Amino acid sequence: MSGKIITIIVTKGSLDWAYPPLILASTATALGYECRMFFTFYGLQLLRRRLRLQVSPLGNPVLAPRLPVLVKALPGMQAMFTRKMQQKIQTKGIAGIEELRQICLDAEVRMYACQMTAELHNYTKKDFIPGVEYAGAATFFQSAAESDICLFT
Amino acid sequence: MSGKIITIIVTKGSLDWAYPPLILASTATALGYECRMFFTFYGLQLLRRRLRLQVSPLGNPVLAPRLPVLVKALPGMQAMFTRKMQQKIQTKGIAGIEELRQICLDAEVRMYACQMTAELHNYTKKDFIPGVEYAGAATFFQSAAESDICLFT
Amino acid sequence: MSGKIITIIVTKGSLDWAYPPLILASTATALGYECRMFFTFYGLQLLRRRLRLQVSPLGNPVLAPRLPVLVKALPGMQAMFTRKMQQKIQTKGIAGIEELRQICLDAEVRMYACQMTAELHNYTKKDFIPGVEYAGAATFFQSAAESDICLFT
Repeated sequence: MSGKIITIIVTKGSLDWAYPPLILASTATALGYECRMFFTFYGLQLLRRRLRLQVSPLGNPVLAPRLPVLVKALPGMQAMFTRKMQQKIQTKGIAGIEELRQICLDAEVRMYACQMTAELHNYTKKDFIPGVEYAGAATFFQSAAESDICLFT
Repeated sequence: MSGKIITIIVTKGSLDWAYPPLILASTATALGYECRMFFTFYGLQLLRRRLRLQVSPLGNPVLAPRLPVLVKALPGMQAMFTRKMQQKIQTKGIAGIEELRQICLDAEVRMYACQMTAELHNYTKKDFIPGVEYAGAATFFQSAAESDICLFT
Repeated sequence: MSGKIITIIVTKGSLDWAYPPLILASTATALGYECRMFFTFYGLQLLRRRLRLQVSPLGNPVLAPRLPVLVKALPGMQAMFTRKMQQKIQTKGIAGIEELRQICLDAEVRMYACQMTAELHNYTKKDFIPGVEYAGAATFFQSAAESDICLFT
């Protein structure tokens, strides 16, 4: 144990942006950090029992930069980009989001759902995986104040 | 007063992404933090006298995930998603952005507009609400160095 | 020298989002900070020898808010918005991304490419500018733990 603490705010809920916070969290615990994650806004998606994460090529000029924007908007393209990214990840032997999330839970990462945004989206505790606790911004500040690293992702 | 300081960089200017920094700021001051916000790039939108914040369903697979992308691109959809989010927020009794901003100002949150990006977008001080000060990256570093929490949002 | 250290995670790879981390880094070194940047996911784009950064008006309601979304999706619009932003930047005398990157390198900013995501995208070291080092999340934590400021951009 390093005795260090990291607090991560998770605000995004797409397949690509799910990776950075979960990789940071799993690495942190492997290095002996105590890790707390606060999921809010679109980030609440990552706490759902049934993950339906997708990646959008629209508004992201880095994905397939030579493909015309109108083609990226065609029906089925978002699903295709999502499948393509999942395949790439699998081929390279990188863990899926569900697996990464479980690694974090097994390593005792505390996962907090933002109560206000959960209510805004009509989520109940049953929508989330077991182990998720509700919290507000005040709990975040308590955690952040005693943390060595604090990131907004 | 907790004697603690938080510095928040605000880079985004859409209706959804306006919430996290302003909620963090208002909660921080309620907990006794001294709070400084640095608005830059698209974040300058949040300082304008007349807010015209919108939310885009395009490029965001979390919003209405089952709606075809081409439908999301139809005329009027961005306005509709914006109205829908505003109604949801109001129904749940959550403060609007203008109100949250005023709560922050009343709590003496210091709001800095990034001079370089303000000039880039041809904004003058008259475009911003009273109380906004101009600052550069150096002022940010002075603030960040003495802060307990520093977030890039 | 201030003796202070800043660590910046760079996750985005579009023309607009390339600015915040590079401006923070170049200002930090000018103020005597030691600066380390960790480029991961789409952020790896900023390390490529030949930069092809673009900006997308789609999914960004702040860019040309009065232009219908379908017009923003027309062929050539992304290229046009990219040119428009580049011209604006040049007119205002602001450095281009390539120039800013060089300023950072000259000031001895350490630039790390995330090995895992580099492999995911089939990048080899030859795709990146000289001076880039490979690193994993563990190296990031080592740097973050000794930093005064740590930002996820």
